This record gives sequence, structure tokens and C-alpha cells, in this order.
Amino acid sequence: MIAIDAQRLLGHIHELGAVGRDSEGRLIRLAASDTDKQGRDLFVGWLRQAGLDIAVDRVGNIFGIWQSLENAGQAPLLIGSHIDAGIYDGCYGVLAGLEVIETLKASVFSPSRPIAVAAFTNEEGVRYTPDMMGSLVHAGGIDAETVLAAVGTDGRVLGQELARIGYAGDREPGFLKPHAYLELHIEQGPVLEREGVPIGAVENLQGISWQRVTIDGVANHAGTTPMSMRSDAGHAAVRVITFLLDRVQASNAPTVATVGTIRFEPNAINVIPSRAVFTIDLRDPDEQRLQAEEAALAAYLEQLALTEKVTVSVEQLARFEPVIFDISIVERIETAAKDRGLGVKRMTSGAGHDSQMMARIAPAAMIFVPSAGGISHSPHEHTGDAELVAGANILLDVAAQLAK
Amino acid sequence: MIAIDAQRLLGHIHELGAVGRDSEGRLIRLAASDTDKQGRDLFVGWLRQAGLDIAVDRVGNIFGIWQSLENAGQAPLLIGSHIDAGIYDGCYGVLAGLEVIETLKASVFSPSRPIAVAAFTNEEGVRYTPDMMGSLVHAGGIDAETVLAAVGTDGRVLGQELARIGYAGDREPGFLKPHAYLELHIEQGPVLEREGVPIGAVENLQGISWQRVTIDGVANHAGTTPMSMRSDAGHAAVRVITFLLDRVQASNAPTVATVGTIRFEPNAINVIPSRAVFTIDLRDPDEQRLQAEEAALAAYLEQLALTEKVTVSVEQLARFEPVIFDISIVERIETAAKDRGLGVKRMTSGAGHDSQMMARIAPAAMIFVPSAGGISHSPHEHTGDAELVAGANILLDVAAQLAK
Repeated sequence: MIAIDAQRLLGHIHELGAVGRDSEGRLIRLAASDTDKQGRDLFVGWLRQAGLDIAVDRVGNIFGIWQSLENAGQAPLLIGSHIDAGIYDGCYGVLAGLEVIETLKASVFSPSRPIAVAAFTNEEGVRYTPDMMGSLVHAGGIDAETVLAAVGTDGRVLGQELARIGYAGDREPGFLKPHAYLELHIEQGPVLEREGVPIGAVENLQGISWQRVTIDGVANHAGTTPMSMRSDAGHAAVRVITFLLDRVQASNAPTVATVGTIRFEPNAINVIPSRAVFTIDLRDPDEQRLQAEEAALAAYLEQLALTEKVTVSVEQLARFEPVIFDISIVERIETAAKDRGLGVKRMTSGAGHDSQMMARIAPAAMIFVPSAGGISHSPHEHTGDAELVAGANILLDVAAQLAK
Repeated sequence: MIAIDAQRLLGHIHELGAVGRDSEGRLIRLAASDTDKQGRDLFVGWLRQAGLDIAVDRVGNIFGIWQSLENAGQAPLLIGSHIDAGIYDGCYGVLAGLEVIETLKASVFSPSRPIAVAAFTNEEGVRYTPDMMGSLVHAGGIDAETVLAAVGTDGRVLGQELARIGYAGDREPGFLKPHAYLELHIEQGPVLEREGVPIGAVENLQGISWQRVTIDGVANHAGTTPMSMRSDAGHAAVRVITFLLDRVQASNAPTVATVGTIRFEPNAINVIPSRAVFTIDLRDPDEQRLQAEEAALAAYLEQLALTEKVTVSVEQLARFEPVIFDISIVERIETAAKDRGLGVKRMTSGAGHDSQMMARIAPAAMIFVPSAGGISHSPHEHTGDAELVAGANILLDVAAQLAK
């Protein structure tokens, strides 16, 4: 049983993870920024050292392709993620992809098809929207011209910024048609750590429904207005939120619901709120169940507007259907883990990933490794070395099978 | 049956109500400000025209006293309120007190005791805290020196401001020991208008409990954190608020509960709140019931901290016991209304008033008249002329009885 070079992989992770750290230890490599260029340059140098063919497309997606005269005509196996986030978030998947290729190249393995590693542009969506931009363009979900014209939070245009840092490539986005797509990623959630399971076989990715609810009542004096004469927008709002969160918490389904923001107007201790505004983040890997939860909420809101002296308006802020990953690849991940004696758990991705875009054009699946405390997007993001190596070896095994 | 001079009363109300209007029609006469001086000067001029003895104490409380050689040794009946608020809020009670004295003076009525009208300093508490300051000092609840040293929202000291506008008087606060105290006021709530009752006989004034509740949980990713692994401070907060407001709303008691302010941290749509902070305004005219509501809330919070993965802390921001007004005066108000063929309702004051301070040193009660829409502290504050006149005539009748 071959294995990846743990020292080389961890070395790459730590070297790339040191690029773009600020004085407080925060890693900031916004898409198409100077620090993104430093990270890209480092990665491309490693691709070159590994003897891979390097391609950069017009939206800055970077590909390192291992192909031979014999297999160059075949659709490649693509392993990808992004390098615009944390030391592990994204970078781990990209560098493990490179590691898998280097390991296989150095072995007696002779793939029937090319194996490529991709670093997609702007997965995080912090400087430019939408997020998962590079993979979305690659999958044909949005025009390259549209995203190249995107204006960042700093007022700068993405196309010009990519040209400035030398990553406005010449390949047409989508030029590489994958046979299959694999992505190895930290979980960014607490499940694997809490359950003591080292490998997640990610079978699907949650659908997301974001809504903003506004409830209007009447502001009045908190002392002089009897309860029966109130139109308390805040009271109505907390009832809605309690209904939704209690309902989802009590169900056995993997549905998750979050009310992360709320505000009352006029927001004074002795004034009944005239308005309450809150957001709802509702996610489920099953589209039918997601719709059922949305419908239950809508029915509750409708009833509320009928029975309480308030008006209710709802705005849909975002809506994505769940993504179902390729079951045969998921099963290969499970088998590979078992073969290496590692615990494995089928799971859902609660966060968005490039894989959800690539699943539109190729059979795709993801491998998760534990995140300490479920934390990401923070200097405290951490996954142990042994867990990182274990995940990369599963990626190696599955990649070898898919490219056999 | 004698009656007040409606035209004179309404004329005074509109003349005083025109002082301190800004370009948008808002009436702003902050305590000891230039516009407060204008209002005071106008009022004192009317006291002088009415032939009353004028006294101003060291904290700026103004008294107009009608006394004769025969009754000067008796404890006076005091009618009071304040002139630092709206066209009706406060001013109505003060000007109706003056009107009652002028009417009685012009009649054959010969009171057995002096009748005085008072305008208390800084009832509103907008520029200087505490509110109901002048009456609190008069009742001996706080030292004159302490309030004279109070620093306003604009950094200026009350004592200096009173001296500047010419209302740092020479009388010692509390010099006037009332036989009884009457206050006529707009309801500032919706009850009288909704029930179509012109006169409120105010039998008590709510006790107030202000608390700030802070709930701490753990911030986590809204997508990747299963419901069972959450410590959602926001979810815990809405449960508490729903419990409290539903409980108070369902009771038949006059208790009122308001959650007027709330905030979540970090307040992001896709992050589980790590902290929720909200305020509770709980009021009840019965101290035992107010304590029972506080205890029910405390028990719920204690249970929550035991069963949920959150910590709870509570800060008491303010606490005042209810005030019980003098039942014999309340009955006189009821009888006077019936004698004039006016509907009357015993009620609770949900707002604070100078009368709650005066009730500490003399038998006291209040008369309410309707507030259109329950609105005060707004340019929309309104009470119809007929209602204002009706209320003043009830004040006249009760005052005549108490000074007979």
C-alpha cells in the first residue's frame, strides 16, 4: 500500500500557510490581491518542480496536469479546491491533490487518464461576489466576462487585478472536462471531532434558504399600553423564531436553522417595538424537506398575520438546492477508509465548496477530515498532522482507483 | 354648579404650548434651558396676574399660592405637575391647577385652607437625571445639593443653569407641606379613548422592574453545526422572551411586560449567535404580583442555564415599588365625574408622575383624560378641547371639596 509523503505535504501546508499572515496571526489572502499572488506563485513553483503542465484560465484558475503521451486524450481526473482562505481551508485540498500526483508519479502507477490539480479563484467571495466563483465559471454557471467585470469591496475590478498580479491566463474557462472530481477539505464543523471519526465520506451538500423577515406593529409606551391593546412586533418575532428553531431542533432530520441577526425599532427599553427584522438561514441536504420547512415557516407567518395585529413581509435573500454527490465515489471513499483501518462516516457538507459547482459537470464527491472545535475562518483553525495525512492517503487511494 | 373658564384654560394651554417649538413642530423645553425659562416666565406672569403669592425653591420648583389671612396657617391643598414636556403632558395639569384657583377665587367659594399650584422642575429627566426630580426633592427623597450638582447631557450643571435662567429660588425645598395633592394629566395610553370613557380615577401607579439579560453561548457555522451540537444564545433568548410575554399576555392581571431592545453577537446571517442581550420592562400596580413575575422569570432563567448549553446573567437596571393613591380622593374623583354625568374608570398609571413622589408626604391621587391614540412625547400628542375642559372641571370639584 503506497502512501503520501507526510513531511512534504505538511511542509507545503505550513509554507503556504505562512503567506499573508498579519501581525496578529490572521491569514488574509483575498482573491487577486498581492498576498494571493504570493500564494499562487509558491503553488505554481511547486507544480513546476513536480514536472506538471501548468495552465491558467482567463479567470485565474490554476491547473497542474500530469499527463502522458498514452493518456493525454482521456478526460482527466481532477482534484481541486482553493488557496484564498485558511491554512487548511482550501489549501489542504489543493496541496493534497499535488501530493497525490507527486506520490503516484514516483510510484509504479501508470494512470489510464491524466490527473490534474486545480486551485480555483475566489472561493471565499470576501473581496468579490459570488463566492465559489472560479469553479462556477469552470462549470459554465456564469460567464467569464461577468466575473472579470466584478467590482471588489475596495472598488477594484477583478479582471484588472488578475492581470496586475499576472494571473489573467489565456485558457478558456472550462477547457478541462473532468472524468470525475475529488475534493479533500476540513469539515469546518464539529461532527467528526465529537464522534471521534477521522474520515467523512461526503454524500451531499446542503441546500440553503436565506430569508429576511420584517414584522411591523405599533410603537407604544411600555407602561401605559395594556397587553391586549399592543401590536408588539418584537413579541411576534420571538414567537416565529422560537417556533422555527424548536421545530427544527425537535426533528430527527439533519435540517439546521439559524437566526443570526435581529433588530428591533425603535430599540428603547420602555417602547414596544414597532418593527422587528431578523434573518433565517435554513439548510437541508434534501430538497423536499427544505421546501417542507420553508412551507411550515410560511404557514406560521401567514397565521401570525391573521391572528396578531402585525404585518409580515418576507424577502428571499438566497436559495440553492442541495447537491447530491456521486454515490459510487462516496462508496470508494468509505471502502478506502476501511481498508486503511480508519473510521468513516457518511455526512453532509454544511458549507459551500467548489465541488458543488464541479458536480454540475462531472461525478464528484468530497472527503472531510476533522476540524478542531469545528472552527474555521479564524487563526484557531486546526487539524492535527495525523488527520491531515490520513485524509490525503484516502484521497490518494480514491484517485488511484478513478485514474486506474 | 360652577365651572372653569374653558376659553381661558385653552388659551393658556395653546400659548404655553407654542413656546419652544422647533421648525418641525416639536416642542422642546428641556429643564433649565432658555425655552424652559420662556415657559416659566409666561407661567409666572399668569400667577402674578391671578394675584397669587409666588414662591420658587432652590431647585426651581415654582409655586403659586392662594391664601387668605384666615387660612394662611393651614396646610394647603397642592395641585401640581410640570411644564418641561408636551403641550398637554404636564402643562395641562399645571394650567388646570391655575384655572381652578382663578375660578374659585372669582366665585363665592371661601376655602378653609390655601390652595397652591406647583410646576415641578425636570419631571422628564431628558437633560438631567433622575426624572421627577423637583417633586422627588420636595418629598425629601433626594438632597437639593445632589441634584443641583447634576451634570446634564450637554455637560452643564443644573444649579448653574437654574441661576442663569433666574430660577434658582430662595425657598428651601419641601417648605410647603400639603394637606393633599392632586394631579390632572393626560393618560399617555390608549385605555380611556378605546373604552370611550372621559375620566380616569387613578388609584395606583405601577411598580417598575427593569432588567438586562445577557445569554452567552458559542458562535459556530450555521451550516456545519448540527442542532444538537449548538449553544445558540439567540435561541435561548427568544425562548425566554416568548415565555415571559406569553405568560403576561395570558394572565388576567394588569401586568405589562415589554422587551424593547435586543441584540445578537456577532450578528451575521450564517453564524450562530454567541451572545444575546435584551432588556425587560415589567410593570404591575401590585408589588406582590410584580415580585411573582420577577420570580417566574428568574426560575425560568435558572432552569435554562441548567438544561441548555448557555450561561445567563441578569442585571437589575431599575426597580420601583408600586404607589397606592389615597382611596378617599379616588372616590371623590369618581363621585365628581358621576355628578357631572361623565363616565369614569378606576385605573392604573403606567407612566411615572410627580404624584408618585408627592404621595410619600400627603394623600394624593390623579385624574386622567384620554390621549388620542395613546400618544405622547410626540407632536401628535392630542386631547380634545371638550375632554380637557371636562377633566379640569373634575379637578375643580375635587379641589373645592378638599379645601372646603
